[in-house]
Amino acid sequence: MEGERTPVFTYDELRCLSTEIFEAVGVSKKEAKLVTDMLVKSNLVGMDSHGVQQIPSYVENILKGICKPGSKIDIVKETSTTAVVNGNRGLGQVVATESMNIAIKKAQKYNIGIVTTFNCNHIGRMADYALMAPPHNMIGYCCVTDKPALAPYGGAERMLNPSPFCWAIPAGKENPFMLDISASVCAIGKILVARDMGKKLPLGWIIDKDGKPTTDPEDYFNGGAVLPFGGQVAYKGYGIAMVVDILAGLLSGRGPAYDQSRRESLPPGSDQGIFQMALKISSFQPIGEFKSEMVNLIKALKNSKTAYGFKEILIPGEIEIKNEKIRLKEGINIPTKTWNKIIKTAKNLKINVNSFI
Amino acid sequence: MEGERTPVFTYDELRCLSTEIFEAVGVSKKEAKLVTDMLVKSNLVGMDSHGVQQIPSYVENILKGICKPGSKIDIVKETSTTAVVNGNRGLGQVVATESMNIAIKKAQKYNIGIVTTFNCNHIGRMADYALMAPPHNMIGYCCVTDKPALAPYGGAERMLNPSPFCWAIPAGKENPFMLDISASVCAIGKILVARDMGKKLPLGWIIDKDGKPTTDPEDYFNGGAVLPFGGQVAYKGYGIAMVVDILAGLLSGRGPAYDQSRRESLPPGSDQGIFQMALKISSFQPIGEFKSEMVNLIKALKNSKTAYGFKEILIPGEIEIKNEKIRLKEGINIPTKTWNKIIKTAKNLKINVNSFI
Repeated sequence: MEGERTPVFTYDELRCLSTEIFEAVGVSKKEAKLVTDMLVKSNLVGMDSHGVQQIPSYVENILKGICKPGSKIDIVKETSTTAVVNGNRGLGQVVATESMNIAIKKAQKYNIGIVTTFNCNHIGRMADYALMAPPHNMIGYCCVTDKPALAPYGGAERMLNPSPFCWAIPAGKENPFMLDISASVCAIGKILVARDMGKKLPLGWIIDKDGKPTTDPEDYFNGGAVLPFGGQVAYKGYGIAMVVDILAGLLSGRGPAYDQSRRESLPPGSDQGIFQMALKISSFQPIGEFKSEMVNLIKALKNSKTAYGFKEILIPGEIEIKNEKIRLKEGINIPTKTWNKIIKTAKNLKINVNSFI
Repeated sequence: MEGERTPVFTYDELRCLSTEIFEAVGVSKKEAKLVTDMLVKSNLVGMDSHGVQQIPSYVENILKGICKPGSKIDIVKETSTTAVVNGNRGLGQVVATESMNIAIKKAQKYNIGIVTTFNCNHIGRMADYALMAPPHNMIGYCCVTDKPALAPYGGAERMLNPSPFCWAIPAGKENPFMLDISASVCAIGKILVARDMGKKLPLGWIIDKDGKPTTDPEDYFNGGAVLPFGGQVAYKGYGIAMVVDILAGLLSGRGPAYDQSRRESLPPGSDQGIFQMALKISSFQPIGEFKSEMVNLIKALKNSKTAYGFKEILIPGEIEIKNEKIRLKEGINIPTKTWNKIIKTAKNLKINVNSFI
């Protein structure tokens, strides 16, 4: 570290630097703002793995020409309710926002819209797209496949993606229900953090290259794999990962996670397959009634008796909102190692980083 | 037991008795055959909880007028891609087959069809409906909500349904991919079996009325609850249960699992809310290519290295097909207690059960 400053930054500071970096690498103001908004929002809600730590690899992909900011999407196949989108290697956040907008427009007219997308850089947090639906009184769903990292149940090899997916459902005066999870026990980001901090992982998160349970994060990077979630019934998490691989990989034409041969020249995260759905609630129930049912359901769950050892029952999405409030006030902590990489990226682009170091 | 016979029966024997029972209680030949086919198929594939053990309660509901065989469904709301169906208290299998057929017809014309259904008796196994889609080169999905049995993550009360759901996806010359699971660690049927056999449950399956972990199945029936699946990350199973409750309960108009007040006169299983979806694959990718991708994915997974302690990697749905082959050959074992209830039901309907006891 060149300065004495602790790597804790305000929301605005991170947004400012991120925007500057993307503009310096040739991204338009509009796209730089969109990508920045989504990355920093990920940090705000506590999903740091999808936050500003992505900046160096995005910039690298842009400089290599693997990611092409400003490129326009093509709809390669379309029906009244569906579309297949070629992202033309655009910035993931830009492409996935456009494709979700297409799904929403189709749902406005035909009640349901499903869009799959290929040829697209890392899109970040699933919630960003699923959450586009609730303001339209729709249910939103988004899932992604990418490189293999997850072992099938009973398997020792990386064959499936951790398979993140998100459901977002409007809930009237409550915050939208938002289930933003993956089919793996943990995010790969958490394994990275444990390694960097020299810590052990809980048993049941990963296996080593022989498929043996291990707590050493290093074993993941030496040919190990992350496990599907489910504990005693992890075949359920495995099955869900397969569904995501099929919806986001096969229906998009991007291909399944395991088959890297057809895109081996592309680095991880630079070739995602996406499946996005929007569902108009009023085609089933009056929207007002649905929303008050949602409010009642949330209230009933929160007011129900807690289990031994628990103080509170949380609704999916609630923890992200709590994190956001805290981090807006107290700032966002970026690990030194991550921050140094971002600063290095900025310096290479001749950005004045004096106020950040 | 009145006879000496071990309660192991052939597929045909069970079908014969089941059909006879339903016809004796006034169900038409056609509906009796449909319900029987689905119940006995559940036993064949190893999902005994949804098999012939349901017969006594179905008959009871019919005799009480809670279930009304022969009643016609009403489509109460409809768009080109969606429908809301009033099951008019018909036999669940009959109603849910009709509603899935509506979803498939809509998908044939508009690529996607989603149908929600309320006012419907127990529909049995989700796979029966999801699997209607693959022969039409469609992806099928079905989920259900019913009475509360599952605690939210961190909760001690039964607030959600175990929330069964099934994805069925065509796979060319392979059997269809079929993920037929619930959001709970185990089916309630398994708790019943453990109790009847005087056995303990594994830790992590249920909690007692105070939300404390327990292995005594009796604790479930004394105000306990089954836990969401997920092990260390059971908040994921809880979130999935909420999604099912919203899709199948709120979008159908049946209402959420927790709110039994609006249908307290109805016994469990006699008032299910359903959500069914059919998705035409060729609106995204050429069906031939999709199917060969599925075959390749299945092969790749099955040929990948097994983990320490495992001999084989199974594809979701494979175990059901294995069970079916074994049980078609070796017969279906029905626990004595269950069988006696079925025989009692048959006798009450003046059916000659001599060949079965």
